[in-house]
Amino acid sequence: MVVRPGEPLLAVDWGTTNRRVYLLEDRAVARTERDDRGVTAIRDFASEAADIRARFGDLPMLLAGMVGSNIGWRTAPYVPTPAGVGELAANLLRIDERTAIVPGVSTLAHHRPDVMRGEEVQLLGAVAAGLAPGDALLVQPGTHCKWAQMRGGRITGFTTAMTGELFALLRSHGLLAAQLTGEVSANTAFRQGVEEAKRRDLAASLFGIRAAKILGTRDDADAAAYASGLLIGSDVAARIDQAPDAEMFILSGPELGNLYIAAIEMHGRAASLIDSQTAFVAGILAIGNVFQ
Amino acid sequence: MVVRPGEPLLAVDWGTTNRRVYLLEDRAVARTERDDRGVTAIRDFASEAADIRARFGDLPMLLAGMVGSNIGWRTAPYVPTPAGVGELAANLLRIDERTAIVPGVSTLAHHRPDVMRGEEVQLLGAVAAGLAPGDALLVQPGTHCKWAQMRGGRITGFTTAMTGELFALLRSHGLLAAQLTGEVSANTAFRQGVEEAKRRDLAASLFGIRAAKILGTRDDADAAAYASGLLIGSDVAARIDQAPDAEMFILSGPELGNLYIAAIEMHGRAASLIDSQTAFVAGILAIGNVFQ
Repeated sequence: MVVRPGEPLLAVDWGTTNRRVYLLEDRAVARTERDDRGVTAIRDFASEAADIRARFGDLPMLLAGMVGSNIGWRTAPYVPTPAGVGELAANLLRIDERTAIVPGVSTLAHHRPDVMRGEEVQLLGAVAAGLAPGDALLVQPGTHCKWAQMRGGRITGFTTAMTGELFALLRSHGLLAAQLTGEVSANTAFRQGVEEAKRRDLAASLFGIRAAKILGTRDDADAAAYASGLLIGSDVAARIDQAPDAEMFILSGPELGNLYIAAIEMHGRAASLIDSQTAFVAGILAIGNVFQ
Repeated sequence: MVVRPGEPLLAVDWGTTNRRVYLLEDRAVARTERDDRGVTAIRDFASEAADIRARFGDLPMLLAGMVGSNIGWRTAPYVPTPAGVGELAANLLRIDERTAIVPGVSTLAHHRPDVMRGEEVQLLGAVAAGLAPGDALLVQPGTHCKWAQMRGGRITGFTTAMTGELFALLRSHGLLAAQLTGEVSANTAFRQGVEEAKRRDLAASLFGIRAAKILGTRDDADAAAYASGLLIGSDVAARIDQAPDAEMFILSGPELGNLYIAAIEMHGRAASLIDSQTAFVAGILAIGNVFQ
């Protein structure tokens, strides 16, 4: 596969339920589209790739995310930590001369097995673009929140927490669901949840939401914000000491990202937002340069 | 209401979905029946009580559990901790001359609001029957696991953890559900879960179940036992230091109870099982004596 200097490149961030296609020209986004054709919606990946080229141009294509998993196009084996741009580029799964999948990353750091697929491009891109230093703790909030330790610009260890999934489960099912319908913001109730989460006793803190309703000690309209504070606060409390000397960086939109920043600041630390699309593009370009 | 010395008594442990009726004669169970007529199944509690008397005898009746909540017969206001037999007997909600409901207990101990309804009878009964000392940490495993501190035979504080509910949610919904179908016993995988739970980082430890499957680091048939170890272990790790000098007592059937004992022993402490029906009967008799 050859990407000539200056030649455009197609990059696809291809997740389980969604997909974003980028047309990259002169190291910048010339055009991008997001749709719901995640890997679970696709039967024939070759014809899907042909469709993308028909719409965006007959160009080299670099794919990342669940497209490289066992529910995707083909399985790109995980690269173990420490993993940098060089390790990922050296382990691209080549589909054909002009199409390749970026591998995911696995770790046994902290004596806990963990995996990522797709997030690694953002993480390395955040450093490549100068959005974060090469030694830092990076956070990717969401259904399965990733916390990645970067050393010398490489991913040296990471932890995934089911923070968003637990919140979604609690809002949809079980005892607390009827209480968790309110808005979530970094308000007083959210901050009380973050404070409670410092106990590191999530299953009991959650029942406190029920007890507060029964005893009337909290306005029930605040229950969802409090629960969000508990869950995000648990995530932060468990990992805040992993990078004691480094600023933290949040790869996220502002809504969720600002909740994490509020929780981190309640632990006396600082964090700033990084645009995750910018980081993804920088990561793909860095990997693509080696890949050429 | 008068229960003459030696006169039989009807006791009903009336929960949300189940109910157990006891005919007590000479301080012993003459007859008992369990059915699924929990409070959510009942429209007319007066006629239900009449039915019980028609079947078991026209006797004084003491009710405990959710029958005293706002979804039950009538609301018996919570008695705050510290709460002993005297406090509960003094705050019985009298329905008529021969029928009364035992109130639940509320607490703000440990700066966390909490409530119980039904469990208090077992807790006080365990001490009244000499099954546990008056100063002890008592555990009632289940959907909402209660940990009660007893001092001088009274409930001085307690914590509820959504341990069983979280396990049920994870087994029924979400990413891990398909993995959590196996048997649970205090096996090696369960013990590994208890050990992992000492990190006090539940949301991340749970994702490790997924990662272990993807990376093939644990036989997936062991995932449910590991998850149970994580959840019970989290419960134990958060509370093991609340009674550093006291043995712990588990009010539970042997299956769940032995999982808690295994987890407690992995923290270097000891616990023993108490039969919860025996404790309930002793508690009702203790409260009923004052009640006469």
